Amino acid sequence: MKSELRKKIGEFIESQKIQRIIITLIIINSITIGMETFDSVMEKYGTILLTIDRAILFIFVIEIILKLFAFRLSFFKNAWNVFDFVIVAIALFPASGIFAVLRSLRILRTLRLLKTVPRLRFIIEALLRTLPSLGWIFVLLMLVIYVFAVIGTKLFGNTFPEWFGTLWLTMFTLFQIMTLEGWAEIARALMTHYPISVFYFLLFILIASYTALNIFIAVVVNTMNEIEKKNEELEMKNLEKIIKSEKSELREEIFSLKNEIQNLREDLKKIK
Amino acid sequence: MKSELRKKIGEFIESQKIQRIIITLIIINSITIGMETFDSVMEKYGTILLTIDRAILFIFVIEIILKLFAFRLSFFKNAWNVFDFVIVAIALFPASGIFAVLRSLRILRTLRLLKTVPRLRFIIEALLRTLPSLGWIFVLLMLVIYVFAVIGTKLFGNTFPEWFGTLWLTMFTLFQIMTLEGWAEIARALMTHYPISVFYFLLFILIASYTALNIFIAVVVNTMNEIEKKNEELEMKNLEKIIKSEKSELREEIFSLKNEIQNLREDLKKIK
Amino acid sequence: MKSELRKKIGEFIESQKIQRIIITLIIINSITIGMETFDSVMEKYGTILLTIDRAILFIFVIEIILKLFAFRLSFFKNAWNVFDFVIVAIALFPASGIFAVLRSLRILRTLRLLKTVPRLRFIIEALLRTLPSLGWIFVLLMLVIYVFAVIGTKLFGNTFPEWFGTLWLTMFTLFQIMTLEGWAEIARALMTHYPISVFYFLLFILIASYTALNIFIAVVVNTMNEIEKKNEELEMKNLEKIIKSEKSELREEIFSLKNEIQNLREDLKKIK
Amino acid sequence: MKSELRKKIGEFIESQKIQRIIITLIIINSITIGMETFDSVMEKYGTILLTIDRAILFIFVIEIILKLFAFRLSFFKNAWNVFDFVIVAIALFPASGIFAVLRSLRILRTLRLLKTVPRLRFIIEALLRTLPSLGWIFVLLMLVIYVFAVIGTKLFGNTFPEWFGTLWLTMFTLFQIMTLEGWAEIARALMTHYPISVFYFLLFILIASYTALNIFIAVVVNTMNEIEKKNEELEMKNLEKIIKSEKSELREEIFSLKNEIQNLREDLKKIK
Repeated sequence: MKSELRKKIGEFIESQKIQRIIITLIIINSITIGMETFDSVMEKYGTILLTIDRAILFIFVIEIILKLFAFRLSFFKNAWNVFDFVIVAIALFPASGIFAVLRSLRILRTLRLLKTVPRLRFIIEALLRTLPSLGWIFVLLMLVIYVFAVIGTKLFGNTFPEWFGTLWLTMFTLFQIMTLEGWAEIARALMTHYPISVFYFLLFILIASYTALNIFIAVVVNTMNEIEKKNEELEMKNLEKIIKSEKSELREEIFSLKNEIQNLREDLKKIK
Repeated sequence: MKSELRKKIGEFIESQKIQRIIITLIIINSITIGMETFDSVMEKYGTILLTIDRAILFIFVIEIILKLFAFRLSFFKNAWNVFDFVIVAIALFPASGIFAVLRSLRILRTLRLLKTVPRLRFIIEALLRTLPSLGWIFVLLMLVIYVFAVIGTKLFGNTFPEWFGTLWLTMFTLFQIMTLEGWAEIARALMTHYPISVFYFLLFILIASYTALNIFIAVVVNTMNEIEKKNEELEMKNLEKIIKSEKSELREEIFSLKNEIQNLREDLKKIK
Repeated sequence: MKSELRKKIGEFIESQKIQRIIITLIIINSITIGMETFDSVMEKYGTILLTIDRAILFIFVIEIILKLFAFRLSFFKNAWNVFDFVIVAIALFPASGIFAVLRSLRILRTLRLLKTVPRLRFIIEALLRTLPSLGWIFVLLMLVIYVFAVIGTKLFGNTFPEWFGTLWLTMFTLFQIMTLEGWAEIARALMTHYPISVFYFLLFILIASYTALNIFIAVVVNTMNEIEKKNEELEMKNLEKIIKSEKSELREEIFSLKNEIQNLREDLKKIK
Repeated sequence: MKSELRKKIGEFIESQKIQRIIITLIIINSITIGMETFDSVMEKYGTILLTIDRAILFIFVIEIILKLFAFRLSFFKNAWNVFDFVIVAIALFPASGIFAVLRSLRILRTLRLLKTVPRLRFIIEALLRTLPSLGWIFVLLMLVIYVFAVIGTKLFGNTFPEWFGTLWLTMFTLFQIMTLEGWAEIARALMTHYPISVFYFLLFILIASYTALNIFIAVVVNTMNEIEKKNEELEMKNLEKIIKSEKSELREEIFSLKNEIQNLREDLKKIK
């Protein structure tokens, strides 16, 4: 009985109709949360916006409760569901005191679209799939930044505390230099005190950008490779088909040859 | 009668000779509009430049009227024609009051070259064709910017109204950060007030540049893929040809075999 | 007689030994010209450096005179030779008055390495070969900049003469914006006066970077394509070889079959 | 006797267990050296950190001594070993006076991870392998910078000593311009004095970024090419297999044909 109810609710909540309503509600909610940032709008329509927000949140909570009822713990096996659960749960925290920041995280609900709209979900999953191949190059980049950060903090920390004061600050500065944003200004300032520091900067830029370049290439190559494999499989299948059809024609020829010989044999028998 | 006149006018207006004259006129017009921006030139040759401009506009209007007469409503079926029509129409508005801005849009007429010069038209159409494949990644990027913008406005809006004052301003700031232009200056200013904001910036830069990277890759892969497909089709045809020619040689061999057997049979008959 | 002398001189001047000496001289000369930029070095060794410079120039002039004698007008048929000729000729101009700038162009002689070192020559020729494929996209980019420049000059020229004062200045500013360098500063300044200008900037950045991206892709695709073609040709040859060898084996089988039948026939004849 | 001891020690020191301990020690050491940069941490735990540092260094020294004993001079044949040796040796220098800088280089020990962690070692070796293919394009880029630097120093050195004062400074400025960081500011400053200098900048940016673009493409193409070769070899093997299996089937057919003929022959013999 109960398990049947579960199945029905599961089917209902995942039906295309309900999903479309959910998508619409997410979009409406995203807009209302965005509108809440405008003080003038809040003055006029503040209560309406907050009511809509609470109503939609209520529906989302019910949706998740129904899903939890329908799929029980297997609900949490799907990473997307956990994602949904956390995002909705955030909104239920009391939005005061230390949790005030959490209130602004309500907008993360917009990200539920990533799960609900199939095309976006597909892209996200593709992006996430290429991430692991970047893992070790990323570790390498972190190592490079860490090593340069320790050296930079020790050598320049006292003279330029603004940029190289602590290990964290130096790492931030190196990240900034890696993005090539304002690196020359920093380098020129340091070069007046430590002329040798120019090698520190050049070396870091060359190594970091070369590594970053290879991160980039890894992504491109990965993607291309996957596509190519599919193409080649297709190509192989086509070729196999061609070769097979050619072969079967040859086979027919050989078969007709056999027939001829058979006929010959029968002719011989007749002679006999 | 009238339909024949239509056909003739249609052929005349699309003849290569007329098209070349139109291209020349567009280029001349582009130059004169460019020259109009120099005050010193306007003082001396202002009337001449404006006369040329009006004369060329007159010709363009006649061209479009003739085309409208020749192709009637099917004229608007071609997107390029609509583009032409709008660009010429802009110039006919009264260039005063609110429409003063429109006057400076006359230079858009230069873009008629995109349609008239075949090579440019080819490139534009190729560029437009790759756009749809970017669609959803672009939507994703917009979502990311929107979510970060709402959070940014709420958290930093009061302290740094210059950058995060309104949702629009924050979105602009985030776009700026995505181009990596001056991001460090903004991040350093915020970090003095909100040390935690460093994660906001790092996260946004990583996500946005990774997404943008994938937009880029999508274009590359698309282009490469299309070219590769053509290459592979060519390759497949070549291979098919080779296999077929090999097969036909084998077939001939088999055919000669059949002949041998035929001969054998006839020999046998003779015995008989 | 004379033609034989010509041939001998031609061979002599293009012999590997002489070429190596020339390369060494170019490198020495590049270094001495570089050293001339240091005032302290010039004070001490000025006369020596200038003497070396003149001596090497003298040798270069003689080299070219010998080449001109050996190959006569066909010397100018090779673009690299013309390049050499112009670069050496520059140094012979009187280095005073208006031509003072030309003196600093003596360093262009370093570029003779591009011709003389085979590997560099190969790269340069490869780079130049990919240029034409960029031609029309480059024209498109120019068109986009020109159109935006005319609009920008007209709309913002009066308020921000520093950036949009003349058509040239606006084109420079747009080029700067295209490199994303300091674009936000300019955009923010304009947005305080013309809020609408944000679309001008966003549109330009999107269009220009998308076009530039496609220039980049055109180069990549071109290079990849060329390499791929070579690879595929190789692959096709390999495949053809495999198919042919397989076929020849089948042929042999068929040939042995024929032999069998031949034997059969002879057996029959014996019966007869 | 001794050679056996050598072998045993060699096996022991390179055993997975010992390697894991070394990796752990490197990571711990990297963290402690990083912590030393925080003054507050040093005040409290300074002696502990330095003791750990010395202890780990001691173990590293013993490791290398054992390796030297085990492999003797062949130890230095492996570039990674030389790398290890130098990094550990640095730490043994007296860390005072001129060598104070060397102390901060202790963090380079972290880079021992590059050798010890197989995945990182693999990436590093892959990165190093693509470097040579960049060699000559890099030389070309250096040439371009050098030539522009000499011209820039001569023409603008007196007016803008801050940017173009010496050859080195100009080369640094050109490197900065190549990264597009703050180039517009420099260019605008120069253009007020030398309007012609705009061509210097545009030309340099176009040439340098086009060359850099080609460095990038060289890496991509190289990587892609290597992967493709592997793919194609695989593909060729597959195809060969298909063709061979098809052929063997045809062969069987022909074999059965032979049998038929053989039978025919025997029939004939019976007649005889």
